[in-house]
Amino acid sequence: MNIDYAALTDLYQITMAQGYFDHGMGTTQACFHMYFRNYPFKGGYAIACGLDQLAELVESYRFTDEDIEYLRGLKAPAGGSLFHDDFLSYLADFRLSVDIDAVHEGTPVFPNEPLVRVVGPILECQLIETPLLNCVNFETLVATKAARVCQAAETPVAEFGLRRAQGAAGGVWASRAAVVGGCASTSNVLAGRLFDIPVSGTHAHSWVMSFPDELTAFRAYAKSFPNNCILLVDTYDVEQGVKNAITVGLEMRERGERLMGIRIDSGDLTWLSKMARRMLDEAGLDDCGIVLSNDLDEYTIRSIRQEGVNAMSWGVGTKLACAYDQPTLGGVYKLSCTRPEGSGEWVDHIKISESIQKLTTPGVLDVRRYYDESGRIAGDMVFDTNADVNADEVIVDPYDGLRRKKLAGKRYETLLKPLARGGRCVLEADARSAMAARERTRAGLETLDETQKRLLNPHTYPVGLERGLFDRRSALVSKMRGFA
Amino acid sequence: MNIDYAALTDLYQITMAQGYFDHGMGTTQACFHMYFRNYPFKGGYAIACGLDQLAELVESYRFTDEDIEYLRGLKAPAGGSLFHDDFLSYLADFRLSVDIDAVHEGTPVFPNEPLVRVVGPILECQLIETPLLNCVNFETLVATKAARVCQAAETPVAEFGLRRAQGAAGGVWASRAAVVGGCASTSNVLAGRLFDIPVSGTHAHSWVMSFPDELTAFRAYAKSFPNNCILLVDTYDVEQGVKNAITVGLEMRERGERLMGIRIDSGDLTWLSKMARRMLDEAGLDDCGIVLSNDLDEYTIRSIRQEGVNAMSWGVGTKLACAYDQPTLGGVYKLSCTRPEGSGEWVDHIKISESIQKLTTPGVLDVRRYYDESGRIAGDMVFDTNADVNADEVIVDPYDGLRRKKLAGKRYETLLKPLARGGRCVLEADARSAMAARERTRAGLETLDETQKRLLNPHTYPVGLERGLFDRRSALVSKMRGFA
Repeated sequence: MNIDYAALTDLYQITMAQGYFDHGMGTTQACFHMYFRNYPFKGGYAIACGLDQLAELVESYRFTDEDIEYLRGLKAPAGGSLFHDDFLSYLADFRLSVDIDAVHEGTPVFPNEPLVRVVGPILECQLIETPLLNCVNFETLVATKAARVCQAAETPVAEFGLRRAQGAAGGVWASRAAVVGGCASTSNVLAGRLFDIPVSGTHAHSWVMSFPDELTAFRAYAKSFPNNCILLVDTYDVEQGVKNAITVGLEMRERGERLMGIRIDSGDLTWLSKMARRMLDEAGLDDCGIVLSNDLDEYTIRSIRQEGVNAMSWGVGTKLACAYDQPTLGGVYKLSCTRPEGSGEWVDHIKISESIQKLTTPGVLDVRRYYDESGRIAGDMVFDTNADVNADEVIVDPYDGLRRKKLAGKRYETLLKPLARGGRCVLEADARSAMAARERTRAGLETLDETQKRLLNPHTYPVGLERGLFDRRSALVSKMRGFA
Repeated sequence: MNIDYAALTDLYQITMAQGYFDHGMGTTQACFHMYFRNYPFKGGYAIACGLDQLAELVESYRFTDEDIEYLRGLKAPAGGSLFHDDFLSYLADFRLSVDIDAVHEGTPVFPNEPLVRVVGPILECQLIETPLLNCVNFETLVATKAARVCQAAETPVAEFGLRRAQGAAGGVWASRAAVVGGCASTSNVLAGRLFDIPVSGTHAHSWVMSFPDELTAFRAYAKSFPNNCILLVDTYDVEQGVKNAITVGLEMRERGERLMGIRIDSGDLTWLSKMARRMLDEAGLDDCGIVLSNDLDEYTIRSIRQEGVNAMSWGVGTKLACAYDQPTLGGVYKLSCTRPEGSGEWVDHIKISESIQKLTTPGVLDVRRYYDESGRIAGDMVFDTNADVNADEVIVDPYDGLRRKKLAGKRYETLLKPLARGGRCVLEADARSAMAARERTRAGLETLDETQKRLLNPHTYPVGLERGLFDRRSALVSKMRGFA
C-alpha cells in the first residue's frame, strides 16, 4: 500500500530526535518495550498481531524528499524554522539500525508482558514508536476480537466489515487480523490479494431490488453462479424469500447443481432460521445451509446458538472490523534502560506515577512461557535478559508483591523472536504469513484452560516479574521517592 | 497514499457486477444514496466529511493487472473459476462513468438525508459502494467527534491519536477529519504534509527519562527549542516538575525567550492544573500556559472546565482518533430507482423491512435546507429532483406521518453539489481543502440553535420527506405488502 512510515509519526518524535541530535545523544543506546496493560474486551487473552506490517515498516523506512522539504518548511510557534539544516541532512540519509524482537503473530499474549522490544540508538527507537504502536495495537485488537467471535461461532466466520472500518488501511489490516484471529475468510478483495487469505461473498439486497421480482433475481444469480450460490432471502419478506430460494434450489438440483445456502440479514435471526430450516428440510433441501449476518458479535452469536440454531457460517462486519466494544488496545511503548554508545552497563530507567498500573519496568526484557505436563500454559515470567533468574523461578504479580508463583521444573519457551537486526528485517516468510499465524492462533488457544477463554469474567492467567526484577524495580521506586 | 480503491471492495460487489454483466443489465441506470440513520454520539448533528478521499477514489479508480490476475485465480466454493474471461477483460478496461453529488465537507448533516448520491450504470454504482462507505462513514464520524470535543474545549485542541488509530490510513484520515471538525492541529506529520493542515507537538516522558535528571532534560529541550518550548512536567512528580519548569522558564526569560507552556498528562488534571497555575503565577510566569492531555473527550474536558480550569490548549488522542464511544457511523448506501439505459422514466425501488427505520426512500433525491430570518436552520426537506415540491413545502417525519412542518416562504439552499460527472472528478480545489472545510464547520455550526448542539439529549432538528414523496413511499409499501 506504499505507506510513508517515516512521516506516519507524531511530530514530537521528530522534535525529540533533533533534540537528541543537538545534544550528541542520538546514538545513546536505548531499550523500549511495547505492551498493553488490560485485557481487551474484558476477556482472558489477546492474540498478538501486526508483525507483517511492522516488517514492512522496517523494510521501507525512509524519509522521502517530500518529507524533508515539508519538515524544512515547518515554522516554530514563536517564529523561525522548527528544524535546522544539519538535522534535516541527517534525516535525509537516515537508515534504521535497530534490533527488534517480537512475539510471533497468533501467539496468545497477556497484559504487562512485552510484545515487542526495540534496542538501538534512542533517536531511532523514538522515531518508530508511533507507527509501531499504530500497527501492533490495532491488529492485536482485531485478531483478539476475531478469536472471540470464532470461539463463540465454532462454524466458519466470514469477516465483511470493510464498509464500516476506520479508513482504507484500517480495513485492509483489519481483514488480515480477522483471519489471523480465526476467521475463515474476508469479503475484502484487496486484503485477499495482498495477504493471500481466502475471500468470500455473494450478493446484496440491491441485486434483488434491481430485478422485476425476487424469483427472477434468484434465478439470474443461480444462472451466473451455479458454483457459488447463496441467496439473500430478506429483501422483502423472509418467508416468501425462502420459498423463492427453494424453487431455485430445486431447479438447480435438476440441473445437477446445488444451492449452497441462504442468507438472512435482518429480523430475529433465531426465529427466522428455525422457520427457514424447517421449510428447506421439508422441501428436501437439507444440504442447503443457513448463513446469518446483521450486527453480530460473540455475544449475539452465542445467544443464537444457545437457542438451538446451527448456522452453516456467519458473516460478521462492523463489530469485528472496528472492534466496536473497545476500539483500541491502549498499548504503550516505554523506555526501560539506556547505555552510552558502544560500551558499558545498561542503566535502568523508570517512570513512576500516582497509579501503580502506570509504573514501568526496567531492563532488557523477554518473556518465558511455562507449560505444565498436560501442555497447558502455567505462567509467564517477564525477566531481564542481562540478569540471572532466581533459582526457584518465582514470578511476582507486578501490582501485588504478595502474589507469587513458583515455576521451577516446568518446561518453558521464550516468546520474543528476532524481527530486525541492525535495521534489516530478518523475519522469515512463514512468520509473515497470515494463514500460518491463523494456525498458531488455533494451536495457541488450545494451550489455554477453558476457564481462561470464558468470554466474560474469565480466570486470570498468571503473568509476573522474575522475583529479582520485581525487587530491583521496587528498590528503584523507593530510591526515586526518597525512601531508599 | 496510493490506495487501490478498485480492489478495496467487498467480493460480492464484483460477483454482482459479473451477474449484471451476464444478464446485460450492467448499463441499467441506477440511483443510490448514502445516508446514516442515527445521530452519532447521541448528539444533535454530524459534520459531513470524506469527500477529498472520495474524489481521490474517482480520480484513481482502475483495476490493476495484479487485481485482474488475482480475480482470475479465484475459485468458486463448488469448483471452477469464480469469474470468466469476458468479464475480466471488461474489468481490465473499466473506467468510471458515474455522476456523484455530495454534501460539502464541513456541512452539518442529520439522519435520513442523503450525504452522497450516485447515478450511473448499476454495475458501477455497486462497485464503488464499499470504498465510498468506508471513507464517508469514517471521516464523517471523526469530524463529528472533533466538533463535539472542540465545542467543549473552546480553546485550541490538538489531535494526537495516531498511535491508537485503526491502521495507517485510519490515522491519516482521522487526523484530517479531526481538523475539519475543528481541531487546531494534529501531531500526525504525514497528515500535515498530505493535507496542508497544522502540525504540533513537543516532547514525551522518554525525553525526560533519558537524561540524568528532569531539570537537565528541560534545560536541554529549551536550548534546542527556544521557540517551541512546552515542558511535560509529570514524568516523576508534578509539583517538582513544575518547579523545574519554572527554573527553566525564568532562565529563558533572562535570555529573552519564553516558556510557552507546561503539559500535564496524568493524575487529577483539575487539581494539578490549579496547583501549577498558582505556582507559575507566583513565579511571575503568568504568560506560561497549561496544556492538558490524558484520555480526554468532550465530557472530561467539560468537567475540567466546569471546575474552573482554563487550559491554553488540549491534547486529545485515543478517544477522538478512533471515535471511542461509537467507532462507526453505520452509514448505508441504498438503491432507490433504476431506468433502462438511455431512456425512459425512473422506476422506484424500495426495500421493506420489519423495522420502519430500515425502510428506504425512492427517487433521485436532494436536500433543501431552509433558514429562518435569523439565519438559523429551520428544517431539511428530502425531495425527488424529478417531481414537484408541494406548494406549502411541507415536510413529513419519515417515521411518523403525523409529524409535519410547513416551510414555505423561507429561504433555502440545496445541499448536494457535483463531485463527479461522467466518472470525472469536478470538485474544485476549495471544496477539497481541509482548512476550507474547517471554516465551513465553524460557520455551519453557527446556524444551529444552541439546544441542537447540546452534548447529550439535544433538541432534535426536523428532517422530513417532501409530502408528495412521503405519500409515494407509503403507497409503494402498501402495494408491496398487498394492501394497495
